[in-house]
Amino acid sequence: MTDSPEPAPARRLSRRHLLLGGAAAGIGAASAVGIQLAGQAGEPSASRPAGDPETGLNGALTVPFHGVHQAGIETVPQGHATFVALTLHDTVDRDAVRRMMVVLSGDAARLTQGLAALADSEPELAVVPARLTITFGFGPGLVARAGGEAPTWLRPLPAFGVDRLEPAWADGDLLLQIAADDPLTVAHATRMLLKDTRSFASVHWVQSGFRRAPGSERPGTTMRNLFGQLDGTVNMVPGSEDFEHLVWRQADNPAWLAGGTGFVLRRISMDLDKWDKLDRSGRESAVGRTLATGAPLTGVAEHDEPDFAATTPIGFPVIPEFSHLRRARSENREERILRRGYNYDDAPTGASVSDSGLLFVSFQADVDAQFVPIQRRIDTLDLLNQWITPVGSAVFAIPPGCQEGGYIGDTLF
Amino acid sequence: MTDSPEPAPARRLSRRHLLLGGAAAGIGAASAVGIQLAGQAGEPSASRPAGDPETGLNGALTVPFHGVHQAGIETVPQGHATFVALTLHDTVDRDAVRRMMVVLSGDAARLTQGLAALADSEPELAVVPARLTITFGFGPGLVARAGGEAPTWLRPLPAFGVDRLEPAWADGDLLLQIAADDPLTVAHATRMLLKDTRSFASVHWVQSGFRRAPGSERPGTTMRNLFGQLDGTVNMVPGSEDFEHLVWRQADNPAWLAGGTGFVLRRISMDLDKWDKLDRSGRESAVGRTLATGAPLTGVAEHDEPDFAATTPIGFPVIPEFSHLRRARSENREERILRRGYNYDDAPTGASVSDSGLLFVSFQADVDAQFVPIQRRIDTLDLLNQWITPVGSAVFAIPPGCQEGGYIGDTLF
Ligand code: HEM
Ligand code: HEM
Repeated sequence: MTDSPEPAPARRLSRRHLLLGGAAAGIGAASAVGIQLAGQAGEPSASRPAGDPETGLNGALTVPFHGVHQAGIETVPQGHATFVALTLHDTVDRDAVRRMMVVLSGDAARLTQGLAALADSEPELAVVPARLTITFGFGPGLVARAGGEAPTWLRPLPAFGVDRLEPAWADGDLLLQIAADDPLTVAHATRMLLKDTRSFASVHWVQSGFRRAPGSERPGTTMRNLFGQLDGTVNMVPGSEDFEHLVWRQADNPAWLAGGTGFVLRRISMDLDKWDKLDRSGRESAVGRTLATGAPLTGVAEHDEPDFAATTPIGFPVIPEFSHLRRARSENREERILRRGYNYDDAPTGASVSDSGLLFVSFQADVDAQFVPIQRRIDTLDLLNQWITPVGSAVFAIPPGCQEGGYIGDTLF
Repeated sequence: MTDSPEPAPARRLSRRHLLLGGAAAGIGAASAVGIQLAGQAGEPSASRPAGDPETGLNGALTVPFHGVHQAGIETVPQGHATFVALTLHDTVDRDAVRRMMVVLSGDAARLTQGLAALADSEPELAVVPARLTITFGFGPGLVARAGGEAPTWLRPLPAFGVDRLEPAWADGDLLLQIAADDPLTVAHATRMLLKDTRSFASVHWVQSGFRRAPGSERPGTTMRNLFGQLDGTVNMVPGSEDFEHLVWRQADNPAWLAGGTGFVLRRISMDLDKWDKLDRSGRESAVGRTLATGAPLTGVAEHDEPDFAATTPIGFPVIPEFSHLRRARSENREERILRRGYNYDDAPTGASVSDSGLLFVSFQADVDAQFVPIQRRIDTLDLLNQWITPVGSAVFAIPPGCQEGGYIGDTLF
C-alpha cells in the first residue's frame, strides 16, 4: 500500500530491498528472516548482493504494505494472482471478524516484506517476496456481521442477458487478492492466509490467473489476453487526477471506506475454438483495434486516440459502432474504471482443446455509477459477446490501507 | 535439444537470441516473426536490444529444438510446465500417427524458437519463447499403433502399496511436456499443439506445475517444494558420464530409441495440513536433511556427502534408517534417475486449505532397472510416506531428437 503513485520501474529498482536467499544465508529456524539490504537511490549497484554482479533479483523486490491505500491496486500488475472468496462461519460475530482481520493484516504485512508469517509452517518459502501484495475486500455479509454501513453498490450486480453465472463462482464474504511475480510465493502466501482464516471462514472459491513472467517483455508492455489482444491499453495512471477521482474518491461511500474503493471480479470464459474460426479482420473489427499493435483501426500506434468519426470510402465507420472499444467507452467521463485482470487457462474438457478466459478485475469508487453502465452497454450490444461468456461475478468493498500497528478494516470496527 | 550439455547461465546469455517484442517492432500479420539478434560470445552487450541497456529479456531466450536428444531433459528446468497425455482415436493408423508427429514436430520447432505455429491463430502470443521446450513421449498404445517394438519397461508401473491411483491421472498414448519460463507462452504452445492433435487424439489428462519464476533467485538455486524442502539436490549433471550412462544409454532399448530415454510422471499429493503438525526436527528426520540449507543431518552445506555411519551420542544413526534420503539412495549406482519435477497447487476442497503436491518427473534409460527399485524401497518403508500419496502414474518412452527436416519419432517409422 502506498500513499503515492506506484514508482516507475527505475525508482522501484533503486528502492528495492534485497533479501539473500535462505539457502545462501544459512537461515535455520522458524523465525528466520531475510537480510535486508536497502538500496540507495541513484546507486543501483550498491543494492546488489555480492555474487550477483550483473542483475538484481526480481524475487527480492517488495511493495510496502502500510499506507493510505491498500497495495495491489496502484501496483504494476504482477505475473500471478490468486483470488479467494471466503464464507464466514455462522458463529463468527463482530469481534471475531475483527480478530481475524488483525491476524490476517499482521501476516500480510510480514509476507509482503519477505518475512515468514507469525506461525509460518514453511518459513523458507517466505523469503522471495517478488512484489507480493495482499489486498482484502469485504462482501456485504462481512460488513453486516461487523454492524457497519455498506456502500449502496455492495451487492450482487444486476443480472445481464449475457450472463451464464455459476453459483460456484459468485459472491463471498471476504476477498483475498494475492499477487506476486512468483507462483510459489503466491501459493505459500495463499496457504498461510487461509490457515489464519480456518477457524473463522471456509473457502468459497479460488481463481488463479497469470500475465507474462517478469523479464519476459520490456517493462510497461501491455499484457495480451488469450485472444492475442493487447488488453489494458486504455487505463488510468496511478497518481493522476483521474485515478484519485475514479478509484480513490470517497463518493457517497460510508466514512470507513475513505481511502478504499470498490472491486468487481467477472470470470469470463473465452471461446477460443470459435474465435479461431474468425479471420483477422473480423477479430480486429470486433474490438476496433489491430491485433499486432493494439492501435485503434483509425491509428498506427497503441496509444493513438481512436477517431470514431472516420469512415471508409463507402461510408461505414472505420471503428464499427458495435465494436468493444466503442461500447466499452462512455461519453460520460465519470463512467470509467481501473482494469487489472488476469488470464486463466484450465484443463480442457470434452472436444475442446482449452478452457480459457479472463479474470476481469476492475477497481472503481462507485460500482453502480462506473462499472454497471459499461457492462450494461456491452450487454445490450457488443460484437465481442459472440465469443465471451461471464460465468462468475463478485463485488467487494476494498477498505483503506492501515498504518503500522493498525489492521485492514480498522476504520470499520 | 542439444548434443552437448546444457550451457551454463553465462554461456546461455552470450548465445541467446533476442526477439524484439511484437508491439515494439510493429509486426502486423499472421506470418510475423521476431527479429533475431544472435549474441556474440564474449560480447553480451552486443546482443541487447536498444532501449533495454540494463538487462537482456529472459523472454527472448531460446533452447535449440533440433539435435541428438530432445530438449526439455538437459535443459535447466523452466518456471512452468504443462504435461498433457493424449489418447489416440481408434481410427488412427500407423500412417496417421506419423503425419501427426510431422505436424507436431514442425510446430514445436517453430514455437520453441519464438516463431508462430504454421496455422497459428494467435501469432502475437508466440513471440516470447522464454526458453520454451516441447518434449514428446510415446506410450505403449502409440508404439503398438506404429507397429514398433516397445522397450520392455514401457507399461504401467507395478502396483505399490502406497498408491491410491485415480484412472483420470493414469497412462496415455502420447505425452507432451511443454515447459517455459512464462505461463502465457506455455498456455499458447499447449493450445497450438492440441489443435494439431485434434483430428488424431483426445485429451486424457492435463497437469500443470511451477517452480520459482525467472529472476526470483540466483541461477542454480535448488527448487523448494511445498513442504519447504530443497528438492533436487542430488541429481545428475548434463554432460557428465553419469548422465550419458543413466539417461541416454541405449541399454536394451530397441534401436529406434537410441538417443532417447524413459519418462515417469507420478502425481503425488502432499498433505500439508498433516505435515504442519510435525515439528521441525521431525520433518528434518523424515528426509534426513535440514530445511534451512538442505544439508544432510551429518553436514553443514547442501551438497555435503551424507555420513550414514554417523551416530548420535546414544547410538542412533544421525540420518534415520527410514528417512527418505536413505531409502531413495541405493548402494547400486545403476539405480539412479534424473529428477525434473514441478509443484502443483490446485484449489482446496472441503476443510483443507490446500490441494497441493509434486508432479514427480524422472528420466532414466531403463524404468524397470532404475526407477522401480527406488520406488519399491520407498514403498516398503519411508518416513515421508505418512504425508505423501501417489494419485497418478504414467510411463512414456522419449524418442531421440530429430535433425532439421526430420520429425520426432522418425526412427520409429
Ligand atoms: C473476456 C472479456 C473481455 C475481453 C477479451 C476484453 C478485451 C478488451 C480489449 C482488447 C480492449 C482494447 C484495449 C484496451 O484498452 O485494453 C478492451 C478495452 C476495454 N474494455 Fe474490455 N474486454 C473484455 C471484457 C470487458 C468487460 C466485462 C468490461 C467492463 C464491463 C470491459 C471494459 C473495457 C473498457 C472500459 C475498455 C477501454 C475502452 C476505452 O478505450 O475507453 N471489458 N477490452
Ligand atoms: C512428494 C513426494 C516426494 C518428496 C516431497 C520428495 C522430497 C525429496 C527431498 C526433500 C529429497 C532430498 C533432496 C534432494 O536430493 O533432492 C529427495 C531426494 C530424493 N528423492 Fe524424493 N521426494 C518425493 C518423492 C520421490 C519419489 C517418488 C522418488 C522415486 C521413486 C524419489 C526419489 C528421490 C531420490 C532418488 C532422491 C535423491 C537421494 C539421494 O540423495 O541419493 N522421491 N526427495
